[in-house]
Amino acid sequence: MAYFDLPLDELRVYKPSIPKPGNFDSFWKNTIAESRSLARDPQFEPQEWGFPLLDVYDVSFSGFAGQSIKAWYIRPKNRENLPVVVSYVGYGGGRSLPVDHLRYPAAGYGVFVMDTRGQGSVWSQGDTPDLDGGSGSPQIPGFMTRGILNPADYYYRRVFTDALLALEAAARAPGADSRRLVVGGGSQGGGIAIAAAGLAALCGLPRDVDQPRGAMPDVPFLCNFQRAVGLVDTDPYGEIRRFCVTHRNRIDQAFETLSYFDGLHFAAQAAVPALFSVGLMDTICPPSTVFAAFNTWAGSKQMVEYPYNDHEGGGSHHFSAQLQFLSSVVG
Amino acid sequence: MAYFDLPLDELRVYKPSIPKPGNFDSFWKNTIAESRSLARDPQFEPQEWGFPLLDVYDVSFSGFAGQSIKAWYIRPKNRENLPVVVSYVGYGGGRSLPVDHLRYPAAGYGVFVMDTRGQGSVWSQGDTPDLDGGSGSPQIPGFMTRGILNPADYYYRRVFTDALLALEAAARAPGADSRRLVVGGGSQGGGIAIAAAGLAALCGLPRDVDQPRGAMPDVPFLCNFQRAVGLVDTDPYGEIRRFCVTHRNRIDQAFETLSYFDGLHFAAQAAVPALFSVGLMDTICPPSTVFAAFNTWAGSKQMVEYPYNDHEGGGSHHFSAQLQFLSSVVG
Amino acid sequence: MAYFDLPLDELRVYKPSIPKPGNFDSFWKNTIAESRSLARDPQFEPQEWGFPLLDVYDVSFSGFAGQSIKAWYIRPKNRENLPVVVSYVGYGGGRSLPVDHLRYPAAGYGVFVMDTRGQGSVWSQGDTPDLDGGSGSPQIPGFMTRGILNPADYYYRRVFTDALLALEAAARAPGADSRRLVVGGGSQGGGIAIAAAGLAALCGLPRDVDQPRGAMPDVPFLCNFQRAVGLVDTDPYGEIRRFCVTHRNRIDQAFETLSYFDGLHFAAQAAVPALFSVGLMDTICPPSTVFAAFNTWAGSKQMVEYPYNDHEGGGSHHFSAQLQFLSSVVG
Amino acid sequence: MAYFDLPLDELRVYKPSIPKPGNFDSFWKNTIAESRSLARDPQFEPQEWGFPLLDVYDVSFSGFAGQSIKAWYIRPKNRENLPVVVSYVGYGGGRSLPVDHLRYPAAGYGVFVMDTRGQGSVWSQGDTPDLDGGSGSPQIPGFMTRGILNPADYYYRRVFTDALLALEAAARAPGADSRRLVVGGGSQGGGIAIAAAGLAALCGLPRDVDQPRGAMPDVPFLCNFQRAVGLVDTDPYGEIRRFCVTHRNRIDQAFETLSYFDGLHFAAQAAVPALFSVGLMDTICPPSTVFAAFNTWAGSKQMVEYPYNDHEGGGSHHFSAQLQFLSSVVG
Amino acid sequence: MAYFDLPLDELRVYKPSIPKPGNFDSFWKNTIAESRSLARDPQFEPQEWGFPLLDVYDVSFSGFAGQSIKAWYIRPKNRENLPVVVSYVGYGGGRSLPVDHLRYPAAGYGVFVMDTRGQGSVWSQGDTPDLDGGSGSPQIPGFMTRGILNPADYYYRRVFTDALLALEAAARAPGADSRRLVVGGGSQGGGIAIAAAGLAALCGLPRDVDQPRGAMPDVPFLCNFQRAVGLVDTDPYGEIRRFCVTHRNRIDQAFETLSYFDGLHFAAQAAVPALFSVGLMDTICPPSTVFAAFNTWAGSKQMVEYPYNDHEGGGSHHFSAQLQFLSSVVG
Amino acid sequence: MAYFDLPLDELRVYKPSIPKPGNFDSFWKNTIAESRSLARDPQFEPQEWGFPLLDVYDVSFSGFAGQSIKAWYIRPKNRENLPVVVSYVGYGGGRSLPVDHLRYPAAGYGVFVMDTRGQGSVWSQGDTPDLDGGSGSPQIPGFMTRGILNPADYYYRRVFTDALLALEAAARAPGADSRRLVVGGGSQGGGIAIAAAGLAALCGLPRDVDQPRGAMPDVPFLCNFQRAVGLVDTDPYGEIRRFCVTHRNRIDQAFETLSYFDGLHFAAQAAVPALFSVGLMDTICPPSTVFAAFNTWAGSKQMVEYPYNDHEGGGSHHFSAQLQFLSSVVG
Repeated sequence: MAYFDLPLDELRVYKPSIPKPGNFDSFWKNTIAESRSLARDPQFEPQEWGFPLLDVYDVSFSGFAGQSIKAWYIRPKNRENLPVVVSYVGYGGGRSLPVDHLRYPAAGYGVFVMDTRGQGSVWSQGDTPDLDGGSGSPQIPGFMTRGILNPADYYYRRVFTDALLALEAAARAPGADSRRLVVGGGSQGGGIAIAAAGLAALCGLPRDVDQPRGAMPDVPFLCNFQRAVGLVDTDPYGEIRRFCVTHRNRIDQAFETLSYFDGLHFAAQAAVPALFSVGLMDTICPPSTVFAAFNTWAGSKQMVEYPYNDHEGGGSHHFSAQLQFLSSVVG
Repeated sequence: MAYFDLPLDELRVYKPSIPKPGNFDSFWKNTIAESRSLARDPQFEPQEWGFPLLDVYDVSFSGFAGQSIKAWYIRPKNRENLPVVVSYVGYGGGRSLPVDHLRYPAAGYGVFVMDTRGQGSVWSQGDTPDLDGGSGSPQIPGFMTRGILNPADYYYRRVFTDALLALEAAARAPGADSRRLVVGGGSQGGGIAIAAAGLAALCGLPRDVDQPRGAMPDVPFLCNFQRAVGLVDTDPYGEIRRFCVTHRNRIDQAFETLSYFDGLHFAAQAAVPALFSVGLMDTICPPSTVFAAFNTWAGSKQMVEYPYNDHEGGGSHHFSAQLQFLSSVVG
Repeated sequence: MAYFDLPLDELRVYKPSIPKPGNFDSFWKNTIAESRSLARDPQFEPQEWGFPLLDVYDVSFSGFAGQSIKAWYIRPKNRENLPVVVSYVGYGGGRSLPVDHLRYPAAGYGVFVMDTRGQGSVWSQGDTPDLDGGSGSPQIPGFMTRGILNPADYYYRRVFTDALLALEAAARAPGADSRRLVVGGGSQGGGIAIAAAGLAALCGLPRDVDQPRGAMPDVPFLCNFQRAVGLVDTDPYGEIRRFCVTHRNRIDQAFETLSYFDGLHFAAQAAVPALFSVGLMDTICPPSTVFAAFNTWAGSKQMVEYPYNDHEGGGSHHFSAQLQFLSSVVG
Repeated sequence: MAYFDLPLDELRVYKPSIPKPGNFDSFWKNTIAESRSLARDPQFEPQEWGFPLLDVYDVSFSGFAGQSIKAWYIRPKNRENLPVVVSYVGYGGGRSLPVDHLRYPAAGYGVFVMDTRGQGSVWSQGDTPDLDGGSGSPQIPGFMTRGILNPADYYYRRVFTDALLALEAAARAPGADSRRLVVGGGSQGGGIAIAAAGLAALCGLPRDVDQPRGAMPDVPFLCNFQRAVGLVDTDPYGEIRRFCVTHRNRIDQAFETLSYFDGLHFAAQAAVPALFSVGLMDTICPPSTVFAAFNTWAGSKQMVEYPYNDHEGGGSHHFSAQLQFLSSVVG
Repeated sequence: MAYFDLPLDELRVYKPSIPKPGNFDSFWKNTIAESRSLARDPQFEPQEWGFPLLDVYDVSFSGFAGQSIKAWYIRPKNRENLPVVVSYVGYGGGRSLPVDHLRYPAAGYGVFVMDTRGQGSVWSQGDTPDLDGGSGSPQIPGFMTRGILNPADYYYRRVFTDALLALEAAARAPGADSRRLVVGGGSQGGGIAIAAAGLAALCGLPRDVDQPRGAMPDVPFLCNFQRAVGLVDTDPYGEIRRFCVTHRNRIDQAFETLSYFDGLHFAAQAAVPALFSVGLMDTICPPSTVFAAFNTWAGSKQMVEYPYNDHEGGGSHHFSAQLQFLSSVVG
Repeated sequence: MAYFDLPLDELRVYKPSIPKPGNFDSFWKNTIAESRSLARDPQFEPQEWGFPLLDVYDVSFSGFAGQSIKAWYIRPKNRENLPVVVSYVGYGGGRSLPVDHLRYPAAGYGVFVMDTRGQGSVWSQGDTPDLDGGSGSPQIPGFMTRGILNPADYYYRRVFTDALLALEAAARAPGADSRRLVVGGGSQGGGIAIAAAGLAALCGLPRDVDQPRGAMPDVPFLCNFQRAVGLVDTDPYGEIRRFCVTHRNRIDQAFETLSYFDGLHFAAQAAVPALFSVGLMDTICPPSTVFAAFNTWAGSKQMVEYPYNDHEGGGSHHFSAQLQFLSSVVG
């Protein structure tokens, strides 16, 4: 409601320094290597959904620990050599139905929509369980605190791994040009896109797959955790706060875990062009945390500010900016 | 929240008898005749929105009293002889941007999205003012009570007239098959679709335009006013209640006006096939008022019940049912 | 809730500089001249409302563009040569009934209560439509954004013009002393009073009518728009924010329009004595925006601070201060 | 919100039978007799409040147990032989300031506004403490449960006694015609008016004071307690519920006390004409409890139904009906 | 809020017939047998918590699939041959700290408090993860829909199994009399107690452990699912509704799963004495669903009704009734 | 919600200077002396509550003006020479039932729980009326403004006097060691504990009773009133604000009264060791007001900060810190 964060001129230069775990790089390299070693080829099953202009594929690919992750892949009918947008979904939602992912294909791109494990029940349907492997701990309802007492168990370790492998799966999609991929998404989807870009830089990609040509994080979540939790108590950041309310003796441990997953560490790795957006009255992903990621981003970058918007950000209006960005990075 | 309306078995047969003004037919025939006499040819201006698979047109057509109304028309690139869905928008929204209307074109249909005069500021942008001609009265914020003291001045007189003329304009769209039109929309859009179908039956259409082949009102609004206002106090029906709160001496006059606009009177005229949907926990358009319209509908009909949904109804899930219906009525 | 604005010592000197359109003066002079040229004599129809101590008149006068505006005029029975308070109404309300306007007459003054066009349905009844002339644009429910894309179309152009002409009509009321008028009102009524005083100074008054002897704006609205919209998101200022949420590409245009209507520009013109009041916890008209108008006011002035009040301000307690002020300016 | 109580046709005949304590009559006769024995003459101190048309008196009179109760008495300047309305105030408010009580004097009546002991801090200022004499018990914040474990200690024993003695004091007011008094009030004020009328009938009045000529209870409170508490959980009835939430073992005792104070028992005594009003969507004083009092009222009676109003009932619109009623009973 | 469920006389006889899956008995017998086969001896580790009057043990026992579950066991210092209350925890909470479980030991009983797997973050701390074994599905935040698409995967299959095995573990606690156990708990704890009693009857207990001597379900949850979900939309039942909102095509499947876990089927098995309680204004576990379980309960039984309480039910007041009940069943 | 008060480093040194009435000391010395002169011996009536490990006494002692105040005294069965915790209750609650006060006795201490006069209806039952002696004034529902216009009448004058006399009564309890008392409580209980410690220092104690050995104020209320009322508008501080909303002309008088009751003046007197706790997101007793008391405390002291907790503070987790503190001060 109204402006509650830093003044705009301070936001634009806000770049906090947050502690990065000493073994951050090895933690992630090992995680990715292990999951890659368990991966099988992605499956693209063509399905009939009533769209004569498009090809729709039901996708299964190997995510964290070789677990099967669902996705949609949609492309303009029979088109080849396509740039593909790998799209991640906002908190609580799932891959939903193909009808909800028509904008990129209608614009001449392939789109690969990764289901978010465990989610997909709050506002759009998902189809992928979260197999947590049994080493977790009590959690606040929601996903933010699932396994939060240990980086190895934390929910987003699995999700971020899925996200990088989704990128690799998308490169194998029918008609996809593996050298012209872009990652994107809004809110949690934006946070995952940042992580995917950072992990791609950190861990590399298969020889025939290029680093993504760009990233489009809109009003991204999962950045600058400690500030976010102290600044707003809306969910999902509020889930972390509520965990700390009850687990008073495990607060440091929880934030230690989160330091392996903060978008700022991934943004610092990401050297590709980025198009960010921010709602200056965003009470879910407060603007300072979005600017923190943006200002930390290692590559070239552009921020679109929506001065009176809350977490809805630019909405459909922002799609024009995205098309322009896509045109500039994947022609 | 939870079930608050009639039990399901009673809903399915609920068909109230509500008073119809004696001059209802002439009121509407005169209204339509007058506006038709002032109409000019619709304008379809092709625009570039970045969708190589589609043609997008910015439309202006003559609505009530010859006033200019905006619309989008979108079709699969260069396709001719197309069935066209004429789509009306929910309360508070406007025609928005083309990117929000891709589903029908991707499915091989043309879509004609009418802007709703005056609206288009709450959740999606609109571009058409409401010219009320200066004979109105004080109103509750919102559109439900604009001109409510006189049928001639009431806001929906203008909107429903726009809606019928939108149908006629859609018949002239590039590539449109004027004999294969369908009307549809959700919430207010559903209520307008019912009105448009009823008015088409009552007032006829130009010789070369067929009655719409079908209607798809989802969780329709603007039906069974008096029951709705006494049953829920959510907006928009609540706007009527709040008007009556202040204008205690004008209640009968307001409901007298509304009797010219109740969807039940239009449904009783509409002889074409219809696909309805209802959320059985809908607190905005309570299920009994939706069933009232459905049970009154004169043509063949089908109801899809969503037992645990509020006003979001079937959401994207319902699109499959719509494609099936479209396939059955416009092949 | 609680203190959310500047500290009191900063409030007392807060005097922002906001941009004034180059043609502000001519815009308003032309507007007023045009409406004056269309005005007819006000009508005062005596009515029986059951108050033997008073005379009650139902008033119609010519407002913006010659349109007919309603008002009440009430005076102590048969009294002549009366000072008259011209009173404007808060947002959402109308002129209501005579029974709601007894305090000034009981105190020996005439009162002239202007109906606010279009309003009068939310908390007190109104009787005057807003004839917007048909050049508007989509709007958020409420009146704040009606015609906001163009100063010529903006709702408050019509209201402020009505307000100045109300002053001139009041001067013609039975028993009124045209040289002893005072303007006043709370919230929107306070904002309108400021505008009326400013316009009277800018545009002059008929020869036999004196500039108002004083102004009594309580917790005034319509001042320092941009700060208000960024500071609180309560309505009515929130209506502007919500417009900007949807019309992301029209924000500058909207604020450009508002710059023709900001109370600060009128306050800077107003050279007569003023009695202001402010609630230091006012979440509707935040204190800084009230002090902004007060500190800008060109004439002599007095501020009554209510330290723990929200928008209710001084309520009936403030009436004593008003009587004292009236006594000092119109004796 | 919306209709939640009995259908209107059932409301109109709803007349519950509730248990009346065997010693109800003696309880009240003793209470009144004892307080009358301690009463001293009321004091009417003329004060200057800036109303040349009126005389304003600050009143002190003896209430329960001889305790001093404040009131305002206002009459048209120097008028004699006046009918007087004795007015009781809604829950939470006090006698406020004279400026809030101008309508009856402007209409040619005297008005005597009783302060409600202890109240007068929530929405209008009061000036009378509640001296509870030290035999109370723990209470829920608010006044509904003050002394609720014993009829002798219960708060409304003191208030209802004050109310009857206010009637007697009003009969002594300057210019008052002691044979033409009327009681009235809204919400709690309506409930007190019912009690005052019932007690006047039960306990009689001084020889030179007539029974009130009429009663005007608007949306009355304090009627049909048990139904009210089970039907709505808004305050003030909700205060009783919350007491029962904590004092699980004292529920019967609390309702036993309330049975000495239920408006229905007073209504059954009251043989004078009455003008009631009811909001059919009243969530504070639900319509069935208002009709219960109305249908039980022993005298001639008239009910004004406001079909879409909540607890605001008829507001200022109702004043016309009141003037008409007053004219018929005190001419 | 207020009374919203059946009238009290109908509640007292409300006993719905709900479908029981044909393989209900075998499903549970197999489940229990399998987990028993994987169980190891419970561990009771004495700990120092600063209570000289008590012995406090940190407990680990084998629950579902042999997974380790935490508990507290507290007894009066060095006391032997003790009746033991096996206590289950309300939704969202965990076993918390020993300081929160002093009432039974102070009353001379042992208490065995089972941690609820995965929970223990919302209002009291838990220490046991939920190992879901990796065959789940997307879920609404919370535990109600974890694995809801398949009885074998459903969260409460694991919890109810834990609960029966907790009973068996409690029988082995230091000083416990394995022939004098009682199960109990509030809300979810009450629902689990019902399930534990039913499973004990259905599946038997080890030779040296008697069926529990009694059950004390307070305001029990997890009963009569379908009615509950249609009657209230508060959480936790609301989690089921929200799942159905999104997973429109999986509603039947979800309720099919729930039919294996409805407390009514367990109550019908339970032949031991029971002490129930109910809040007649309980909006979380509506009274009809509590009476449904009570009226179905196969053993002797007693219901304590709290007429004005919401889900807090009898609170500490109810403890007296529990002591009396305990005294009667385990003397 | 989230952090809204000063940054932590500023909190830790925040020590405001607030005006202390010149006659503060004499006001309290006279008050205490007068009530002591009216005191009779406390009564300890042993009662059976079903706890074989404990002795439970229903206590009556003389509080303010000799009025009878209830309390519970509980000790480990037959234990003598016991340190005793004198415990005060949070706002709205009463002494409740013995079952709610087991933790100190189970830990080997006596506990003396003072009932709070008049309270005890909101969340736990109380049994002591507030006899206000009849010199009060209108009040906002709740206790914060009872008698607020005069220090002699103010509610907390009576409560704080009760609290000191409770300490003296506890010293006479069966088995109590009058030289090893500690005061404590949460929220209002913490504020009262501060007052009791301060008054004990200011007014002294009987010869055979030692100054309390320590104080344990958790998230204390009743400190730094003026800042609290301007910083949050939650209740109970909000009751003061609401009083000022209505009684605009009595604000200074109200705060003048409060200056006799501000915890900071008592903390400055208190020379014994203290264990404080604070929730850094406490919206009821904002952290700065808690630190204000802590930083003012005259004795040795320790603060436990709960960084993500609201007013629930440390909850049961804090009990370990309390046991450690008790062990250090009363061994």
